[in-house]
Amino acid sequence: MTDAVDAVTRADGRTPEALRTVTIERGWSEHAEGSALISFGRTKVLCTASFTNGVPRWMMGSGKGWVTAEYAMLPRATNTRGDRESVRGKIGGRTHEISRLIGRSLRAVVDTKALGENTIVIDCDVLQADGGTRTAAITGAYVALADAVEWARGKGFIGKRATPLIDSVAAVSVGIIDGTPMLDLAYTEDVRAETDMNVVATGRGLFVEVQGTAEGAPFDRRELDALLDFALAGTAELTEIQRAVLAADTEA
Amino acid sequence: MTDAVDAVTRADGRTPEALRTVTIERGWSEHAEGSALISFGRTKVLCTASFTNGVPRWMMGSGKGWVTAEYAMLPRATNTRGDRESVRGKIGGRTHEISRLIGRSLRAVVDTKALGENTIVIDCDVLQADGGTRTAAITGAYVALADAVEWARGKGFIGKRATPLIDSVAAVSVGIIDGTPMLDLAYTEDVRAETDMNVVATGRGLFVEVQGTAEGAPFDRRELDALLDFALAGTAELTEIQRAVLAADTEA
Amino acid sequence: MTDAVDAVTRADGRTPEALRTVTIERGWSEHAEGSALISFGRTKVLCTASFTNGVPRWMMGSGKGWVTAEYAMLPRATNTRGDRESVRGKIGGRTHEISRLIGRSLRAVVDTKALGENTIVIDCDVLQADGGTRTAAITGAYVALADAVEWARGKGFIGKRATPLIDSVAAVSVGIIDGTPMLDLAYTEDVRAETDMNVVATGRGLFVEVQGTAEGAPFDRRELDALLDFALAGTAELTEIQRAVLAADTEA
Amino acid sequence: MTDAVDAVTRADGRTPEALRTVTIERGWSEHAEGSALISFGRTKVLCTASFTNGVPRWMMGSGKGWVTAEYAMLPRATNTRGDRESVRGKIGGRTHEISRLIGRSLRAVVDTKALGENTIVIDCDVLQADGGTRTAAITGAYVALADAVEWARGKGFIGKRATPLIDSVAAVSVGIIDGTPMLDLAYTEDVRAETDMNVVATGRGLFVEVQGTAEGAPFDRRELDALLDFALAGTAELTEIQRAVLAADTEA
Amino acid sequence: MTDAVDAVTRADGRTPEALRTVTIERGWSEHAEGSALISFGRTKVLCTASFTNGVPRWMMGSGKGWVTAEYAMLPRATNTRGDRESVRGKIGGRTHEISRLIGRSLRAVVDTKALGENTIVIDCDVLQADGGTRTAAITGAYVALADAVEWARGKGFIGKRATPLIDSVAAVSVGIIDGTPMLDLAYTEDVRAETDMNVVATGRGLFVEVQGTAEGAPFDRRELDALLDFALAGTAELTEIQRAVLAADTEA
Amino acid sequence: MTDAVDAVTRADGRTPEALRTVTIERGWSEHAEGSALISFGRTKVLCTASFTNGVPRWMMGSGKGWVTAEYAMLPRATNTRGDRESVRGKIGGRTHEISRLIGRSLRAVVDTKALGENTIVIDCDVLQADGGTRTAAITGAYVALADAVEWARGKGFIGKRATPLIDSVAAVSVGIIDGTPMLDLAYTEDVRAETDMNVVATGRGLFVEVQGTAEGAPFDRRELDALLDFALAGTAELTEIQRAVLAADTEA
Repeated sequence: MTDAVDAVTRADGRTPEALRTVTIERGWSEHAEGSALISFGRTKVLCTASFTNGVPRWMMGSGKGWVTAEYAMLPRATNTRGDRESVRGKIGGRTHEISRLIGRSLRAVVDTKALGENTIVIDCDVLQADGGTRTAAITGAYVALADAVEWARGKGFIGKRATPLIDSVAAVSVGIIDGTPMLDLAYTEDVRAETDMNVVATGRGLFVEVQGTAEGAPFDRRELDALLDFALAGTAELTEIQRAVLAADTEA
Repeated sequence: MTDAVDAVTRADGRTPEALRTVTIERGWSEHAEGSALISFGRTKVLCTASFTNGVPRWMMGSGKGWVTAEYAMLPRATNTRGDRESVRGKIGGRTHEISRLIGRSLRAVVDTKALGENTIVIDCDVLQADGGTRTAAITGAYVALADAVEWARGKGFIGKRATPLIDSVAAVSVGIIDGTPMLDLAYTEDVRAETDMNVVATGRGLFVEVQGTAEGAPFDRRELDALLDFALAGTAELTEIQRAVLAADTEA
Repeated sequence: MTDAVDAVTRADGRTPEALRTVTIERGWSEHAEGSALISFGRTKVLCTASFTNGVPRWMMGSGKGWVTAEYAMLPRATNTRGDRESVRGKIGGRTHEISRLIGRSLRAVVDTKALGENTIVIDCDVLQADGGTRTAAITGAYVALADAVEWARGKGFIGKRATPLIDSVAAVSVGIIDGTPMLDLAYTEDVRAETDMNVVATGRGLFVEVQGTAEGAPFDRRELDALLDFALAGTAELTEIQRAVLAADTEA
Repeated sequence: MTDAVDAVTRADGRTPEALRTVTIERGWSEHAEGSALISFGRTKVLCTASFTNGVPRWMMGSGKGWVTAEYAMLPRATNTRGDRESVRGKIGGRTHEISRLIGRSLRAVVDTKALGENTIVIDCDVLQADGGTRTAAITGAYVALADAVEWARGKGFIGKRATPLIDSVAAVSVGIIDGTPMLDLAYTEDVRAETDMNVVATGRGLFVEVQGTAEGAPFDRRELDALLDFALAGTAELTEIQRAVLAADTEA
Repeated sequence: MTDAVDAVTRADGRTPEALRTVTIERGWSEHAEGSALISFGRTKVLCTASFTNGVPRWMMGSGKGWVTAEYAMLPRATNTRGDRESVRGKIGGRTHEISRLIGRSLRAVVDTKALGENTIVIDCDVLQADGGTRTAAITGAYVALADAVEWARGKGFIGKRATPLIDSVAAVSVGIIDGTPMLDLAYTEDVRAETDMNVVATGRGLFVEVQGTAEGAPFDRRELDALLDFALAGTAELTEIQRAVLAADTEA
Repeated sequence: MTDAVDAVTRADGRTPEALRTVTIERGWSEHAEGSALISFGRTKVLCTASFTNGVPRWMMGSGKGWVTAEYAMLPRATNTRGDRESVRGKIGGRTHEISRLIGRSLRAVVDTKALGENTIVIDCDVLQADGGTRTAAITGAYVALADAVEWARGKGFIGKRATPLIDSVAAVSVGIIDGTPMLDLAYTEDVRAETDMNVVATGRGLFVEVQGTAEGAPFDRRELDALLDFALAGTAELTEIQRAVLAADTEA
């Protein structure tokens, strides 16, 4: 980035290309086979991985496993209270969309043959929201997933030499605010962004999902390129944090 | 209690009349007007209080406020994953029942006239469950409620001398296991209990709710009396913990 | 009770410790295996017991039977018409709560081993409501249940010497109005009660459920004791009425 | 009818053109503004009319009133228990269809201008079913409606000389069984009928609804004519019963 | 009809006993086993028949097939946009009623034994509505059904000599407007009609369904007879159109 | 593209960078204020625009208009029949996601101030599906929207000189199959694609949405660039087709 861009002042003092403070509390849940309480600044998401030996009826005999995800927000995770989806009796479009995104992102790094006929359900519940809940969820979900896979290996449900996880996966948001590209938007930045993009990438730096939306003015190819640069740098940093956490001795 | 009873060994080493370790992290949420993350042993419930100036349409002009509560459990709060009620599209009977219980318990110590035409919604979300989730929820909800009332007083929505909270409220479970009354049942104790009772009492030691159920054999009057003794001692202890937490300087 | 209490005048001329007129029309339904149209004064509940040989899939092979209950109110059972829950598309919390209470109360006197792998569903539909609908429902449901058990015995689904019903069960409400404990509250009394309690007890006088709620001021131990005295006297009286009805020759 | 037809033996001894025993217990409900418990043989339907001063928002200012109906069946009204529609969370097609039929049938004899801006909701709940529940419901609903109109006139909501009911209405089923037309089919007859028709007619003998369905073989014009003859004779008889009941002094 | 009646001027210049222009585009869908886009004037309904080898679980082993239908309207098929039933989360009574009518009408001409254990689901989706959508749907559905049967015969799911279709079926609306009977009502006529009747008849001229409703004044026997005459003439004409279309070489 | 790429054979004979045959039948609906039946090869989507003067309550007084969209598929639009979402009682995640995408895409070219307090609802119903339904829907929806805006201008709801549409919008899918980028995937291509991307762009060639998903192997930056090149060429071509259609005299 140019000097000019670096000079931009963000509300929390970050430079445009800086992530917020990211922390991952691995093994937060005493019940789940894998879990992580992840924070991207004030955004906090509890990710749990629930392992079951066996697959849904329609997959039996395929020799393949299944990984799926559900995302939700506590009613007062946000600044003003939202209605519970259970009370309204239906799931909103945004919730559906993010649940599907998390599931696809995780499956992109899973070798379902190596997983065998086992099911892992990832729950990502946003306890506090300040922008970037879906990207924090994906990044934390991978840690919970990795721990659930090791738990299952320990129990003999997954072979000693099987490699169900062929890569790691992490995600980050990027956006253009007042013409400046920025990484990992907080809520107040997100609402001001002209363009908002979520990028999911593997530990090896390949794209899994690229979802860019013009919230204000449509964007051109040059802006898109700048956003992709920022995003890949951000997911590389997140990959390092995941590795460090998973290398530690703590167990779910 | 007699020596004989004290001699009973509980799985976690407690005596029959002992509470589990209770901790209350006041002001856990950065968004809610009041909040508390309460633990009764391994049971953890996040309680948030959302304040709104104004009341539902059907109460307008009454000069009275409204306090209500919603209870829910994260899908993997328990040992095996449960379906999300939002996904099933309806709220289960147990959830309904507990939400109503929490709301009634809080309203029992609220002077709605003194609250004025304001609404406080309490959300109790169980992050981890190990028995006693509804009693932990009520006990934590009171702390969140108290902080929301003070927040509103600070903003001028509630008069300087108004006393919307006429008492405090706390709750605890008691049960009879193998013929012995016990306080604050953990999950493994709860499933073994012949009789299970939840008692909600005010800081002054008056009953708000008494809900006893024979899960196994029906119980007699003498057993009921023993359970009530234990429960009032337990809620008195919880009242002390609430007071200490609310006396501290930390703010929601 | 003291003379002072006896002097209290109730709207319908009853003494505080008196039940309303209770009638049970056994075998009201020509289709159900057991049925009873029960009245507690103007409250009328139609209770039917539907017997099925077999149990839900998750209980197969357990050698045990299953008893469950559903409670509902006709839309104009009450003084002003309520919406149908089928039209609203969901069951309210109160309905859920009462259905569960009736089911638990009946199961407390059922030996599911002796019942064998059979299912009995009890439907309690309130045709007219004037307070105490849940207690009338439980009291009538027992009669319907007893007839369904005998019907099944006659058909050979239950052994000649099996004793699926190990006791009888009945229920009554009690409350404190203007400081005076009273038995079997009519609707206008119920809305004025400071404390409202529903007690379910067996024919032998043991408690199955005790659910006391402070609607107004919280209550103390002495008041609770007075309410329990009234309630046990009331359920004993109801037990006698159940016995007399079941001893008669009429059959469902 | 010819001698040949008269010779047919029906299970309950009726001739083909005979109604079952019809009884109407007017004013059954102590709460509703109008009510009738009607029996067509073993079919029993409780009809209540709920009067409200005022109309739904979309009709305000039209000067016209509104009459609508809801039909439902208790789960064990039938020979084998059906699921509750409230539990399933949706209303079945048959229930919808019959509710709409009852509403249309009643509105056909209502002068909504004369009714003024008032709403009457008719609830028809089948307590016991043995064929012909929709026709019994319509016939009983008219009696409940008539009483609600008189109640409202007494309260001054409807003018002294207004004539909101311009005619009466009644309904009956007819069908062809083994080639023979029959009136007012009981359940066992209904399931055997090749053709099943419900006819709603006014007290003056005009048609409001004619709904004929070939359950087995399609029917020809001659058969249709025979069914219509039977039906008009049946509704004329029901009209007489309605008049007699409404002429009596008993009041809802 | 008399000269007087012929003299009536309809908005689109038709005589009272004339159908609107009817067109059937057979094999409209490239996916469905049978399909027809039918127009009755400006009313356009897309009918598809989906064939599945096998029957629902509860019919297995019966040796019989199953034919069912679902009807729906696009939100802007009508003059003003209606809410989607999928968005509202429930199907309206009218939709339910018409779906059931179409299903019954088709089954009246199906020999389910000859169909064998196969299922055909007919979808009738109204793309544009101008009155008579249910009658156009039935008439078009028969064509789609016939093609699906032939498709299945070609694939060997139905025997070469089996005759699953024992007759054809078509439907038309009739009504009385300003005292004059008219055939095949357009929307503006439908709303003005005092009486509205839908008649479903077979190719042989037998009645399958007769559904007459007095929207305004009740109708007498003479009027009913006139409507039935018109209707049978109309369905005979539709039968001819169906035959011509099915005789052509075009295939679904 | 290089010669090598051009040499790839697609099932329908297209070159990798070719669109399928695109047709737009403007003004298909006789009721809607704007409409278009669009085909991308065998994919056919009916798009209608419903104009209402006024906005939802929460937008009143803002001086701004509202444009929203709903997408759905007929049950037999696809090769095997899918359940109706109205029958299942809830909208699936995919439907939600696409409806939201269409709405956002259209709003990106709408100046809501210039639209004034008016609402336009776009319905996109897939009559036949063969891949690319969402991109066809967006492309057709713009045509329907443009006609509805002109209709409203003609009626005086939108000012003569107002420019509610600040640009046009179109969409196309691109994907990588066997390592080769391809434009506008048909269904059989879509299921084989390793990477699948939907791009929404304005008539001026700016991005509104970029949604790329690795269905198989994650993709690198070079592949992403190739896909974006193809997509912008495709949307430019679609823009031309939209212009030609809208320039024609035919009116909705």
